[in-house]
Amino acid sequence: MEGDDALGPDATIEGLLEALASNRPTPGGGGAAALALALGAALVAMTARLTVGRRRYRDVEDVMRGITSRADEIRAEALGLIQADADAYRAVSQAFGLPRETEEQKQVRSGRLSVAAESASRVPLRVGDLSAEVIALASEAVAKGNRNVISDAGAAAALARSVIRISEMNVAANLPLVRDADLRGEFAGRVDKLQERLATADAVVDDVLGGATA
Amino acid sequence: MEGDDALGPDATIEGLLEALASNRPTPGGGGAAALALALGAALVAMTARLTVGRRRYRDVEDVMRGITSRADEIRAEALGLIQADADAYRAVSQAFGLPRETEEQKQVRSGRLSVAAESASRVPLRVGDLSAEVIALASEAVAKGNRNVISDAGAAAALARSVIRISEMNVAANLPLVRDADLRGEFAGRVDKLQERLATADAVVDDVLGGATA
Repeated sequence: MEGDDALGPDATIEGLLEALASNRPTPGGGGAAALALALGAALVAMTARLTVGRRRYRDVEDVMRGITSRADEIRAEALGLIQADADAYRAVSQAFGLPRETEEQKQVRSGRLSVAAESASRVPLRVGDLSAEVIALASEAVAKGNRNVISDAGAAAALARSVIRISEMNVAANLPLVRDADLRGEFAGRVDKLQERLATADAVVDDVLGGATA
Repeated sequence: MEGDDALGPDATIEGLLEALASNRPTPGGGGAAALALALGAALVAMTARLTVGRRRYRDVEDVMRGITSRADEIRAEALGLIQADADAYRAVSQAFGLPRETEEQKQVRSGRLSVAAESASRVPLRVGDLSAEVIALASEAVAKGNRNVISDAGAAAALARSVIRISEMNVAANLPLVRDADLRGEFAGRVDKLQERLATADAVVDDVLGGATA
């Protein structure tokens, strides 16, 4: 099971950290990325929740409720993706371990590797897409939310930015194993689109810093 | 106590996320940053641990042992800083709540705010300094460690980068409350130095991506 007790939502923080730091290959960077995504989603929701119910921000109350609702969904999905990432990684490892002495064995192994690598790419792509959403939610929360707590939404954007970069690395590691060239092209295109969000995340943090010194 | 049960090392991941997402001001971005720092330290240690004991990497075994040892220390300190950040934030909040009707009250309040804001700056500065260390450790782990798991060290660098930006926001929010101009200058200088590490973190991730496609 390779440390999977440490991956569920009831796991302790210390247990997850121990499992990450250990010499077992899972959980690894992809799992940490999914957790960082959950942290970001939680922080956006916090800014929005601390905006709702304040007279000065009455006009944006519906927007803020929309943000909390979507951010809470993302947080829940992100928690599940910690386990999904470990499962996908393990399937790739197992495929690597298949025999490759005969031509038939090589074909079987390469096919299994391709299927496993596809899953191991889809998980970080999903994590990346949700991070892009967190950056968009954070941008709105910083622009319209309670000025006293916009730095929490800014923190969400910073964390989501790092998650996109981690997703990029994890897709890059798996992509060469995917046999279908069209699928490789599609995944590479999705990674490129995610890259465009890095600058948006930086701008959200800069907005917070501008507000703090104004 | 404002959700502090959710902050200790025995706290569950789900509990901490709930506390972050709630409409209580602590824990917030600073606590999430300290946890992201701990995640980064754990991931650097993982790459180093998966390098030790492999014949191909025998020459860097001592370097890798040094990395795990320091990364484990940073992880432990980071966990404590989650609570320290919440405590420091609360002290600032309490000072804000002091009466300011008479001149004397205003003086007392401003003095208390200054002391609290100094602590609330020192915590993110420490978190930032440790993140800079994680980036340096990650850089070494990516350059010399087990090629199969360098993306975990790359993930550490990406996370540490986001932590530096969060620290920057949290120092900026508190700095104007610090009365001592010399101290404000010192803190601003430390933040500037931390900024220089962002490019290093980006380079570590780019190195991993270069290795993955080579």
